[in-house]
Amino acid sequence: MNKLLIVGTVAFDAIETPFGQTDKILGGAATYISLSASKFGIKSGIVSVVGGDFPKEYFEKLNAKNINTDGIEIIEDGKTFFWKGKYHNDLNTRDTLITDLNVLADFNPVVPEEFKDTDFLMLGNLHPAVQMSVIQQIPVRPKLVVLDTMNFWMDNTLDELMEVIAKIDVITINDEEARQLSGEYSLVKAAQKIQKMGPKYVVIKKGEHGALLFNDGKVFFAPALPLEEVFDPTGAGDTFAGGFIGYIAKSGDISFENMKRAVISGSNLASFCVEKFGTERMENLTYDEIQKRLLQFKLLTQFDIELT
Amino acid sequence: MNKLLIVGTVAFDAIETPFGQTDKILGGAATYISLSASKFGIKSGIVSVVGGDFPKEYFEKLNAKNINTDGIEIIEDGKTFFWKGKYHNDLNTRDTLITDLNVLADFNPVVPEEFKDTDFLMLGNLHPAVQMSVIQQIPVRPKLVVLDTMNFWMDNTLDELMEVIAKIDVITINDEEARQLSGEYSLVKAAQKIQKMGPKYVVIKKGEHGALLFNDGKVFFAPALPLEEVFDPTGAGDTFAGGFIGYIAKSGDISFENMKRAVISGSNLASFCVEKFGTERMENLTYDEIQKRLLQFKLLTQFDIELT
Repeated sequence: MNKLLIVGTVAFDAIETPFGQTDKILGGAATYISLSASKFGIKSGIVSVVGGDFPKEYFEKLNAKNINTDGIEIIEDGKTFFWKGKYHNDLNTRDTLITDLNVLADFNPVVPEEFKDTDFLMLGNLHPAVQMSVIQQIPVRPKLVVLDTMNFWMDNTLDELMEVIAKIDVITINDEEARQLSGEYSLVKAAQKIQKMGPKYVVIKKGEHGALLFNDGKVFFAPALPLEEVFDPTGAGDTFAGGFIGYIAKSGDISFENMKRAVISGSNLASFCVEKFGTERMENLTYDEIQKRLLQFKLLTQFDIELT
Repeated sequence: MNKLLIVGTVAFDAIETPFGQTDKILGGAATYISLSASKFGIKSGIVSVVGGDFPKEYFEKLNAKNINTDGIEIIEDGKTFFWKGKYHNDLNTRDTLITDLNVLADFNPVVPEEFKDTDFLMLGNLHPAVQMSVIQQIPVRPKLVVLDTMNFWMDNTLDELMEVIAKIDVITINDEEARQLSGEYSLVKAAQKIQKMGPKYVVIKKGEHGALLFNDGKVFFAPALPLEEVFDPTGAGDTFAGGFIGYIAKSGDISFENMKRAVISGSNLASFCVEKFGTERMENLTYDEIQKRLLQFKLLTQFDIELT
């Protein structure tokens, strides 16, 4: 059974959408990534930090999915990272109302002994210095290192981010971030430039418009599943990343052909995430449901045309 | 050899993009549709109107592609429809600077005898009263009637448009127009509602984000080809429609399976159209080039994943 180590935030989220709102609920990049990856029967662990206010039952939820939480430091007199956001009517844009870093402000990640030989490493969206620290604590390079990041780090900690980007295999960012990072409007050109920064594989997430996978001169596209209702997009990008790395970790196969399946898997998992508020759908989602929906992705994309 | 009748504008366009600008060049929906469909070795004809200022060499260009122009009325003392537009830096949005309807203002379409038994009918974007007149001039219903329209007709002539929509088989519109026509934000729900208005098949064009084909409970997605450079998006939607109906007219097959191939074909043709200003790329595009690029669409979308 392959090991997957995930670094990222574990947080409280408060979410407003046109369909309702939540109080503080379980959130964070590492939470969504790990819940998504946990569907693939691998051994995963989280490196993160929370405050004394973080409920024990949340740890139990994660542990019940075979997600190791020994690497989640608890600062008893601190408070857990809190994010509050409000989505606009189209659900494609949102305003951040509150970002309380709290214990995340001084986070020094510690990789548990048990995960120092991890086969796969997923660096969730977080300060690049934290991501770099985790890379440096792993003595033997994992088979594949995947980075997710965002425009905030490009704006504020670009030098540190570029050092991390130079050390990874796969980067997942959205289309606007790819443009910002590369200075290129065309996503094809953006991916070419980003590949020269380090990662051989560039995954550009386009939300409801799907995701592109670039490697060398090759490109593959995974659509998002057209849905009747999108309830809450929170965590969809992290869930995509979890479905991507989870699929790869299960198979152990890092070929381009398998990465194609992995981006379909990411898109598949993300399509469930948005069906309910927060982590709700991901918590009760079964492997059987995931496999069934794969058929919809096949029907959506596969065609038989004669090449002459 | 199947016959395809195309009704739509034949026009002068003046285009400004970040890469340059043109004087008055050949444009119009019927022009792009017919050039695109002409790649499929069918017998096509245009119903339209131009002024005495329309150059003979443009007719010759079309005729050289086996496009019959007998249905293009020439109003000798009138002027050809003229559109001038300027694209913004991202090429996704544009401002219309000039729209001179000219001879189009009082257009009474006349279907040539030779096309009254047309196998396929493509109603390009135009006043719905003109589209309806063409439908009514064809005594035996064609195998497939495809309609392209836009928000302008929804805003200004909705009742007439709805009468046309009730009589057609396939509608092609963009995502915002699908939302406007249906009052639904979700494209899945929008397509369901639009199918109840008449057309069994709904094609929703999303520009650089590809196109969705809906029929009954089924959905298929054709991506746009990720391109290094988009030079001029003018006519891409019409070229898509031409590649769609041209493919179907060549094969004579109106099954859902074949319509999947047809939307891929439309997306394929559109990917060429945007490579040069105006109709330039479509004029010299060969069938061999089209077939070669189909392989890129296969590589872009096809994956082999085990369904358990």
